[in-house]
Amino acid sequence: MKKNIKPGTYACPAPVWCVGTYDAAGKANVMTVIRASICCSTPPHLAISVKKSAYSYQALLQRQCYTVSIPSVKYLKEVDYFGIVSGRNVDKFETSGLTATHSEQVDAPYVAEFPLIFACKVRHVVDIGGHVQFVGEILGIKADKAIVNDNGLPDITKIAPLIYAPASKEYWSIKSNE
Amino acid sequence: MKKNIKPGTYACPAPVWCVGTYDAAGKANVMTVIRASICCSTPPHLAISVKKSAYSYQALLQRQCYTVSIPSVKYLKEVDYFGIVSGRNVDKFETSGLTATHSEQVDAPYVAEFPLIFACKVRHVVDIGGHVQFVGEILGIKADKAIVNDNGLPDITKIAPLIYAPASKEYWSIKSNE
Repeated sequence: MKKNIKPGTYACPAPVWCVGTYDAAGKANVMTVIRASICCSTPPHLAISVKKSAYSYQALLQRQCYTVSIPSVKYLKEVDYFGIVSGRNVDKFETSGLTATHSEQVDAPYVAEFPLIFACKVRHVVDIGGHVQFVGEILGIKADKAIVNDNGLPDITKIAPLIYAPASKEYWSIKSNE
Repeated sequence: MKKNIKPGTYACPAPVWCVGTYDAAGKANVMTVIRASICCSTPPHLAISVKKSAYSYQALLQRQCYTVSIPSVKYLKEVDYFGIVSGRNVDKFETSGLTATHSEQVDAPYVAEFPLIFACKVRHVVDIGGHVQFVGEILGIKADKAIVNDNGLPDITKIAPLIYAPASKEYWSIKSNE
């Protein structure tokens, strides 16, 4: 038996990824996003949605590129902080103690401590409503050697990514489905 | 120490959701997607990416709407099947034994047995490459009473959603991050 729920953003699981940009003054910033996904395989693209009021929004429009750093569960505290505080007021790298490293492929910083990094060049900008979606082509990927398997690809159990439940605003992690 | 990986679709976690459409003849079809996310909160939108070669692609273009049914782990076998077989050749509802129900809000069917359903009207179509992204406004949500909490919202632990790891092509589920 089903009941109707007022439209909202309750689809789960959502990823928990951190978007790196430089602002107009060249200050590195990072914000946590949960509205994001791979959106094309050939060529590989990764889309992120950002509120127009977010400090990163202007940086994305100006530089037309970004990184996505995928955190491990052990960085939950920093990741939650990156999603709450605005880069307008704070240098989030300085206050968190994490390291901004310039991407080789795009003009954006990534979080050096996080295990898996995507460098993206904006190809499409979709003005949806409160959020604008940036669809970026993946120009480069960097992975910690410790999370790469013998086949050369990242291992989800070694990444230990976070998962977000929008309805309860809680973070989760993965386990075997058996 | 990081190593470079050739660009690919290795970002995780990915959701495992099932997209419902009617084809030109009115036959209900369903396909599993892993390239999808909520992409705007006001008004709520949900984006899915579909290969141009997919049977659902023409249906999406023609009817400009779709449902997203979120399966529980216990439907892994059916969900995997929905992602492998094409609706061009098979009636996936008939062969799987699952039930196509017409959405109240849009001209598309959903999977009645799955616990959480989104009805979406296409607002933007983004031609990215091998995949085309459909950005749909969420016009309605239906949830099994059994997965709804006292606050009236869906509970991720009761949904028990699947999670996909693109690099290893494996399905996972959620656990507490503690």
